[in-house]
Amino acid sequence: MAASPMGRPRDPEVDERITRAAAEVFGAEGWARFSVDAVARKAGVGKASIYLRWPNKEALLAAVFASRLSGVRDIDTGSLRDDLVALARQVLRAFLDEAGGSVLRLMLEAESIPSGPEHLDRFLQSQATAARAIVHRGIDRGQLRKDTSVTLLLDTISGGALNHALVAPARLRAKVARGADRYAEELVDFVLASVATAEAPPAAGSAG
Amino acid sequence: MAASPMGRPRDPEVDERITRAAAEVFGAEGWARFSVDAVARKAGVGKASIYLRWPNKEALLAAVFASRLSGVRDIDTGSLRDDLVALARQVLRAFLDEAGGSVLRLMLEAESIPSGPEHLDRFLQSQATAARAIVHRGIDRGQLRKDTSVTLLLDTISGGALNHALVAPARLRAKVARGADRYAEELVDFVLASVATAEAPPAAGSAG
Repeated sequence: MAASPMGRPRDPEVDERITRAAAEVFGAEGWARFSVDAVARKAGVGKASIYLRWPNKEALLAAVFASRLSGVRDIDTGSLRDDLVALARQVLRAFLDEAGGSVLRLMLEAESIPSGPEHLDRFLQSQATAARAIVHRGIDRGQLRKDTSVTLLLDTISGGALNHALVAPARLRAKVARGADRYAEELVDFVLASVATAEAPPAAGSAG
Repeated sequence: MAASPMGRPRDPEVDERITRAAAEVFGAEGWARFSVDAVARKAGVGKASIYLRWPNKEALLAAVFASRLSGVRDIDTGSLRDDLVALARQVLRAFLDEAGGSVLRLMLEAESIPSGPEHLDRFLQSQATAARAIVHRGIDRGQLRKDTSVTLLLDTISGGALNHALVAPARLRAKVARGADRYAEELVDFVLASVATAEAPPAAGSAG
């Protein structure tokens, strides 16, 4: 994020290559074995290129969390079902892409990572905030029962997506990723059948 | 599992203390930092006590998986709702107890742990087998729609429980654990409202 000390504009492609490599190293090895050395090797850049951008490995990891694990966004599509599908897809992507291991690592190791609890909290809060907004709009439109539990909706959608991503063995990861968009719709329709009002069924197998 | 080479009966309390410590060390540190030394310190026993039982750290970890992560059992209570609540409680316990980190570690690191994929597969298969049996009994009794998806039911119940356990910050872990039995009922009622037949609502807020 800092400008190069030389005032030369930084190459954003290199930034991206480094943070992606850092996410992969952190996801695969955890904080204990996370090093600027390992990230440089993985990214195919010199260590100097990393130190030009981030003063130490703590700052590098913070950049990973900021740029690649920014959490989920609330997408207001105008449709309850489509909002939830968008949420489920973001969660699936967060766990299925190459940085997927990073989120789990953060959950496991938050207490021993610098600023880990804050980063984790930000990620989880982004999910909760998005879910809350989606539920409130759904209730306002009369598509969700007024007593719909945000916690249970989030646990089943977000947890369902998480479980789906986690139980895929490594050799099937790519296949699961390809089917993720379709799965997100099935998951949302399944959950919505539980909480939708009878008057305004938002799902009913429509293709979105 | 092996008898002591001296023929002296082993103290099962010590076995239990060692595998619990091993689960904690593995959950907190991962395979890369898992050592007989660290487990001995944590368990407050000498290394000889461990080597008397297991020849090396691979065997010790296998004992952890066998004794503490044996997966979930299908409990046939005669009631669909109670079966699912029992399943959800087992998943919550697997992730909330002191060995909770072990399951996540295994998911993250299976590929780099000796026999890791096999151990993980056994754990996941136990969940799938239990869920399938519960669903089939529910369909046979007319309490579940015939087209109920075992995958979606398992993803939402098991994933919901997993999410609930994961999003609890460390400082709230004990509180979440105390509320886990009640939460399992809420989760199951939420999901069942989606898939139960109208004729035989199995949930309807009964206290089980």
